[in-house]
Amino acid sequence: MKYDINESIAILERTPAVLHSLLSGLPGCWTQATEGGESWSAYDILGHLIHGERTDWIERTQRILEHGESKPFEPFDRFAQFADSQDKSLDQLLEEFAALRAANIARLREMAISEEQLPLKGSHPALGTVTLSQLLATWTVHDLGHIYQIVRTMAAQYKAEVGPWVEYLRVLQESGIGGQA
Amino acid sequence: MKYDINESIAILERTPAVLHSLLSGLPGCWTQATEGGESWSAYDILGHLIHGERTDWIERTQRILEHGESKPFEPFDRFAQFADSQDKSLDQLLEEFAALRAANIARLREMAISEEQLPLKGSHPALGTVTLSQLLATWTVHDLGHIYQIVRTMAAQYKAEVGPWVEYLRVLQESGIGGQA
Repeated sequence: MKYDINESIAILERTPAVLHSLLSGLPGCWTQATEGGESWSAYDILGHLIHGERTDWIERTQRILEHGESKPFEPFDRFAQFADSQDKSLDQLLEEFAALRAANIARLREMAISEEQLPLKGSHPALGTVTLSQLLATWTVHDLGHIYQIVRTMAAQYKAEVGPWVEYLRVLQESGIGGQA
Repeated sequence: MKYDINESIAILERTPAVLHSLLSGLPGCWTQATEGGESWSAYDILGHLIHGERTDWIERTQRILEHGESKPFEPFDRFAQFADSQDKSLDQLLEEFAALRAANIARLREMAISEEQLPLKGSHPALGTVTLSQLLATWTVHDLGHIYQIVRTMAAQYKAEVGPWVEYLRVLQESGIGGQA
């Protein structure tokens, strides 16, 4: 499917409500659970999404529009949330994410990016040349990927509890150690 | 994590709201999209969840409580939704699912299943002996698995659009043909 900014915003703008309905008020046994090892809980993932709103997606969008490839993106800190989220409740994180996302969607709409601007190029510190539409498509898939990771992580908590049904439940087969979504 | 009926209901009762916030009003390019071949769209999955509420989870729970292993479960029709959902809008399916789920949670609460009843046995037509807690844990994981499948299917639509970021997005690597979640 070809990238379309309005169809993309339709996903981006609903992610805070999806996470709220999925996580707010849910017992901590689900929201604090990980897939083991260094993998992330729903709580950790929320902090990661907040950090992305603060430092990544919209800033990189603006950088492409202002500087093209001449000024590479700042590297993204995948572990910032472990310090940033300290002492915050899950509901505080949900609210913080919702407010940041709403502001970033408003900024994105103000930029009024045209079809002709979508192929504009930027420079990623590890991946090299990327385009504006690739960045915006990635923002969208990144949201979906972390919803995916949250539900996979929650499902995994009952892997031993479903008995013989385990073979019918693909979500349990795909769950494993690893924080990346 | 050990099966707990209240923790399990905490997931089951929020699934309708999660699906509503994820899908209501979303452009059809996302809700009708599949992973190719015989795989299911979000719309198809909603119909499948509705059929499960009508014929599967709560009926099987009651059968275990009433008949134990002496009367096997009815086989579940994994393709019923293709006839049942015809001519219904996505919002109609969301409402139908929400109403059925609310009624089934009410029935489940009325059953007042005790810790001592969780090991009660039933008979699955393909899997053989299963327990009540395995059935209820599977109901819970089944919800999460289909949310997982919906977001994976939506994400897959931008697989070619994210450019070099594809290697960072596990959700795109796990997406493939196949309707099972």
